[in-house]
Amino acid sequence: MSDFMRVIYNEQMADLAGLLGEMAGVAGTLMEQATQALLEADLPLAEQVIGEGDRIAEMNTLAEEKAFALLALQAPVAGDLRQVVSAIQIVGDVNRMGVLALHVAKVARRRHPNHALPESVNGYFAEMGRIAVNMGAAAKEVLESRDPHRAAQLNVDDEAMDDLHKHLFTLLMDREWKDGVAAAVDVTLLGRYYERFADHAVEIGRRVVFLVTGVLPPDTDPATE
Amino acid sequence: MSDFMRVIYNEQMADLAGLLGEMAGVAGTLMEQATQALLEADLPLAEQVIGEGDRIAEMNTLAEEKAFALLALQAPVAGDLRQVVSAIQIVGDVNRMGVLALHVAKVARRRHPNHALPESVNGYFAEMGRIAVNMGAAAKEVLESRDPHRAAQLNVDDEAMDDLHKHLFTLLMDREWKDGVAAAVDVTLLGRYYERFADHAVEIGRRVVFLVTGVLPPDTDPATE
Repeated sequence: MSDFMRVIYNEQMADLAGLLGEMAGVAGTLMEQATQALLEADLPLAEQVIGEGDRIAEMNTLAEEKAFALLALQAPVAGDLRQVVSAIQIVGDVNRMGVLALHVAKVARRRHPNHALPESVNGYFAEMGRIAVNMGAAAKEVLESRDPHRAAQLNVDDEAMDDLHKHLFTLLMDREWKDGVAAAVDVTLLGRYYERFADHAVEIGRRVVFLVTGVLPPDTDPATE
Repeated sequence: MSDFMRVIYNEQMADLAGLLGEMAGVAGTLMEQATQALLEADLPLAEQVIGEGDRIAEMNTLAEEKAFALLALQAPVAGDLRQVVSAIQIVGDVNRMGVLALHVAKVARRRHPNHALPESVNGYFAEMGRIAVNMGAAAKEVLESRDPHRAAQLNVDDEAMDDLHKHLFTLLMDREWKDGVAAAVDVTLLGRYYERFADHAVEIGRRVVFLVTGVLPPDTDPATE
């Protein structure tokens, strides 16, 4: 690659990485708002989150197009190529994180004016929401800084999420659960949405470690057990 | 691209497409076995499905490596490049289909020697399993034939899956549900696994339509509502 092409390539790649970071940031913000809408049965806020669906889809398409253009125009090799391929894979994860935030908001909307959550699990979801928002912010930071240590750190957050998710299931399976089947179904789905959101953030971390070090960390997600 | 390079490229691309088709076929077979294990509380069969996790992961890594090698060695352009990029995206979907089949088998294993499903929903899951298996086979066929009409047909199967999934939720939300919270939680998660399996097959169809026609069909999955 000539020096000139190198400058163009670096610019386009930074642009794509910035967009991926922005997508992760948007997903984190939407999950924050969706969690608030869920906890407070706030319909306007739920609607606002759901209204961002088109923006998520547009950013997804734009990111795919930018990655394709990088391959088509620059024909990168070696480490550069690895970056673009990783970016294509990461697009799928950040897109999905946004969609999962919308899923949470849709449950809040579906149950309005009731609360979707029984009071007994509010604390769990407040905490799962907090972790998810942190992981969205961390994914954004990792995409921008490409710091492999920070990327690996995402696993620690994910373990906390998995622990909460397991406790939640213990509650649901307990004979003491008094909130009925309908609430249990909502709690089951919502728990899954938060857990998957975290999984995608971890996957982004793995991809960033790979593109920096060339080694893909093993996929040891206990949530798949 | 020289004639010689063209021959090599076509060979490598056919090899990759064959592997993707194989992955879809394996996912369909595993979903068939997982559904049987679920319906019959068949622990050895559930274990057998779960034991295929490493094979799925290996095929996933191999497919990613083959796609990367195609980009690195052949530097494809235009339609060829679109094929490889689509393949990278499809790898994620076929991999996930296999993982979801394993999730179903894990629920069967977790509840053994009990049946995870109450008898009242056996018929739903037999039918959701049948549709999922068909969609796995259809995805395999589409990956091999690249027939955009057959690919679009996957949407019809997906609508049938969504209808079943909605009916299942109506049952769960009904005051007449007599099978308790624990069963409802399992049914909720299992329903979600089948639905997501179908979504990934649809996504493969969309990608194949895109790589053949250059136009990505709109993502109009009602299940995301």
